[in-house]
Amino acid sequence: MASLHIDLNADLGETTAGNPVADDAAMLEMVSSANVACGFHAGEPHSIAATLRDCAAHGVTVGAHPAYNDKAAFGRRFIDYSPAELADEVTYQIGALDALARANGTAVRYVKPHGALYNAIVHHRDQAQAVIDGVKAFGDLPLLLLPGGVAVDMAEKAGLTVIREAFADRNYNADGTLVSRTQDHAVLHDPADVVARVLQVAESGSITAYDGTRLSVDAQSVCTHGDSAGAVEMLRGVVAQLAQRGIDVRSFA
Amino acid sequence: MASLHIDLNADLGETTAGNPVADDAAMLEMVSSANVACGFHAGEPHSIAATLRDCAAHGVTVGAHPAYNDKAAFGRRFIDYSPAELADEVTYQIGALDALARANGTAVRYVKPHGALYNAIVHHRDQAQAVIDGVKAFGDLPLLLLPGGVAVDMAEKAGLTVIREAFADRNYNADGTLVSRTQDHAVLHDPADVVARVLQVAESGSITAYDGTRLSVDAQSVCTHGDSAGAVEMLRGVVAQLAQRGIDVRSFA
Amino acid sequence: MASLHIDLNADLGETTAGNPVADDAAMLEMVSSANVACGFHAGEPHSIAATLRDCAAHGVTVGAHPAYNDKAAFGRRFIDYSPAELADEVTYQIGALDALARANGTAVRYVKPHGALYNAIVHHRDQAQAVIDGVKAFGDLPLLLLPGGVAVDMAEKAGLTVIREAFADRNYNADGTLVSRTQDHAVLHDPADVVARVLQVAESGSITAYDGTRLSVDAQSVCTHGDSAGAVEMLRGVVAQLAQRGIDVRSFA
Amino acid sequence: MASLHIDLNADLGETTAGNPVADDAAMLEMVSSANVACGFHAGEPHSIAATLRDCAAHGVTVGAHPAYNDKAAFGRRFIDYSPAELADEVTYQIGALDALARANGTAVRYVKPHGALYNAIVHHRDQAQAVIDGVKAFGDLPLLLLPGGVAVDMAEKAGLTVIREAFADRNYNADGTLVSRTQDHAVLHDPADVVARVLQVAESGSITAYDGTRLSVDAQSVCTHGDSAGAVEMLRGVVAQLAQRGIDVRSFA
Repeated sequence: MASLHIDLNADLGETTAGNPVADDAAMLEMVSSANVACGFHAGEPHSIAATLRDCAAHGVTVGAHPAYNDKAAFGRRFIDYSPAELADEVTYQIGALDALARANGTAVRYVKPHGALYNAIVHHRDQAQAVIDGVKAFGDLPLLLLPGGVAVDMAEKAGLTVIREAFADRNYNADGTLVSRTQDHAVLHDPADVVARVLQVAESGSITAYDGTRLSVDAQSVCTHGDSAGAVEMLRGVVAQLAQRGIDVRSFA
Repeated sequence: MASLHIDLNADLGETTAGNPVADDAAMLEMVSSANVACGFHAGEPHSIAATLRDCAAHGVTVGAHPAYNDKAAFGRRFIDYSPAELADEVTYQIGALDALARANGTAVRYVKPHGALYNAIVHHRDQAQAVIDGVKAFGDLPLLLLPGGVAVDMAEKAGLTVIREAFADRNYNADGTLVSRTQDHAVLHDPADVVARVLQVAESGSITAYDGTRLSVDAQSVCTHGDSAGAVEMLRGVVAQLAQRGIDVRSFA
Repeated sequence: MASLHIDLNADLGETTAGNPVADDAAMLEMVSSANVACGFHAGEPHSIAATLRDCAAHGVTVGAHPAYNDKAAFGRRFIDYSPAELADEVTYQIGALDALARANGTAVRYVKPHGALYNAIVHHRDQAQAVIDGVKAFGDLPLLLLPGGVAVDMAEKAGLTVIREAFADRNYNADGTLVSRTQDHAVLHDPADVVARVLQVAESGSITAYDGTRLSVDAQSVCTHGDSAGAVEMLRGVVAQLAQRGIDVRSFA
Repeated sequence: MASLHIDLNADLGETTAGNPVADDAAMLEMVSSANVACGFHAGEPHSIAATLRDCAAHGVTVGAHPAYNDKAAFGRRFIDYSPAELADEVTYQIGALDALARANGTAVRYVKPHGALYNAIVHHRDQAQAVIDGVKAFGDLPLLLLPGGVAVDMAEKAGLTVIREAFADRNYNADGTLVSRTQDHAVLHDPADVVARVLQVAESGSITAYDGTRLSVDAQSVCTHGDSAGAVEMLRGVVAQLAQRGIDVRSFA
């Protein structure tokens, strides 16, 4: 019988102007997939290269994490791109990251859009198509996406593999959407809740929504965070629990 | 007997924020090699992609034109980079451009550093090595350089092919250096002089310096400009003369 | 009896990385108000300062032309700012421009938002309020706006003077909105039509819409363009006609 | 008899893209002068405004902290500006910051150049003059500088007040220059040494160099750091000691 396993992914390589955003070194001990910044929302080539080298050393799978061209806001606000411009920026970012990855003993194996772009393509069909076009212009890499968004169906129709992800530390509504960050109960703060979430995804392919509804999720990856000391510490607890339960942390790639 | 031939190169793809810098369409009818901006001194991915598509359509060889990260000054002022940072930025830029090139039916075939970086590596050994390292991290592409600079020897020692270029519209000193732009006679303005220069390089491998000294130059390419209406018109005259003399405009690649 | 007069305004100071966008020198011979770039969509401090010095020399009134922080797209695409961030960016831009203006013998006398920001505040109440807040944080400068938008009423309620402008070279719908640039008849190309438009605004406070409807407009300024040789030439014709008819080109300030 | 007093200054307002660089809130409890980022090496207008509001609330004097236009490297590498461009960028930055400061209950009272620019004008006369020109174009604000550099004499000749500063946590050579950061003993790590340094500057106007030489320094301000938890903690010790000794922390302004 195949052992249970789950992929843990996190945003890394976001050090900008010498100022780290997450504890990349600690995270690379724990996650199996790294969504590495491409320089458009964060990261300079030299710090990105250092993260890629560490990914190679730890056997962590590298994903490109393309974003809107908006360092001032960390790629966190919607920009009304023309789709053709967005597609070319996605290709540019993947190509730049892949060149640095290959120079450092690894390569880009998947793509996860960042921030406001990730959120936009849940519903914005033109930008979703632009992301898909931009990826395919580079090569048929898998896309790591939120289940249920329009980009999922569009990507699969375009022949791309879609990896669906669950969130370790966010509450869900009964319809499978995330509780908005404007709500008090958007985020899970109790480490026990986070551990339970990840175990439930890995062991039973389900998530319990905030109102108790049990949601079936086909998630091959779980999104984690390393952008605070508390987040890193919480993830240590998750990883320890997964090990105790015999659940392997392993890339989907 | 092999026919005479010469490569003509020009800086293209520098349209920024929708504002063109050169008449790329006109230039692509005439040159054999295009030094295409990579987005660090000029160019956005979408306008760069358009230029690359036109390069493919015209059979013009594509070179990467990496620069200091300095759009505010068009890459025209020296920046005291740490060499490791510079090397990674060169790799990043080549990778980004190559991804766009491959998506548009061509590929990066050589590298010509831009502006202040081009000038710096004539004498700045650490930055020269950084450029070489950055190119080699991507792949052993030829470098298009000014003859006589320290980067030429260093690149050849590192196993890279160096293409030397002459300047169509600049006066030379007797020692083979360019007359500084601070001098009144830095630039050739008379189209007849420019035509004579290019023919002399192509037919006899020599350049006549400002003081009359005949310099032997081993130039496989001639740098031309398309950044003014006058420059484009002058190049038309050059190309017509080359055709009359049976000299083929052909890439070195 | 007071003589007829009209203000002509144009976007200037947009030279970026040494590459001019408009013929600022020619325009400053003709317009009475200059919407000067503040460095967020175009312009570097040094080129902006040169335009400001020329404004002072020609007695042209200086307006700040703040924009989204988006040089890559010349401020031409909507960005979903948080209002508080936008307000502070407006204050920052006006302050920066005013310091350069005062160093060059003039000062900022009004504010006209640029591009996508100008268009957004016709209907986007939060961003309209942010612009108003950002202006008032600097001082109670007049706002130059499109008549009919939500920002007009909000600005007047906030105690700011609003200057309404008409467009010299755009067709209008019967309801007073501009014909969308996605329509073939968006722009007036015939110089005679442009001249007639400006004269009609100046002489009778009206505009004839594309379908023949006569619109009453209370426009104290007319927006002109200098971003092509044709546009500059057309404006020369307009200015000559205004002079013949005894209509003074004069700032509203 | 007048009580002893000293000014403590620190770089603040450097939060970029939502990622803080220093603990501004903690520092504003302790320092008397804040060198506030102007958006060229770090800081966005909205985060800068928040720091300025806190400066006003704490009665901390605000200085402008202009820098090279180089966010990618946090303004830490030399750029070979044309002096006229640099001067206009200094004016632009001071004007932008002053507008935000006035909107938040304070104003710019002095100027301290940042990073590589601060270091360059110790010896680079053209850039020193550009900084002085840029300040004077805004107004005759005092400059906070390293004693002994060429900018000090040039600024005083130009009629500007110069405030000289000592460094709380850097070792000095016997000639009064700072021990280079390439040396192991560049930085003071022992809190007791830092306290002793500040007390010695405040009480006797002197510094003991690394080799024991006693240097007379006419420093009206001491540069401190808040960019690590350790640095903030160390400063708490300094401030407590100053209080015990009856030395007032007070702005020079």
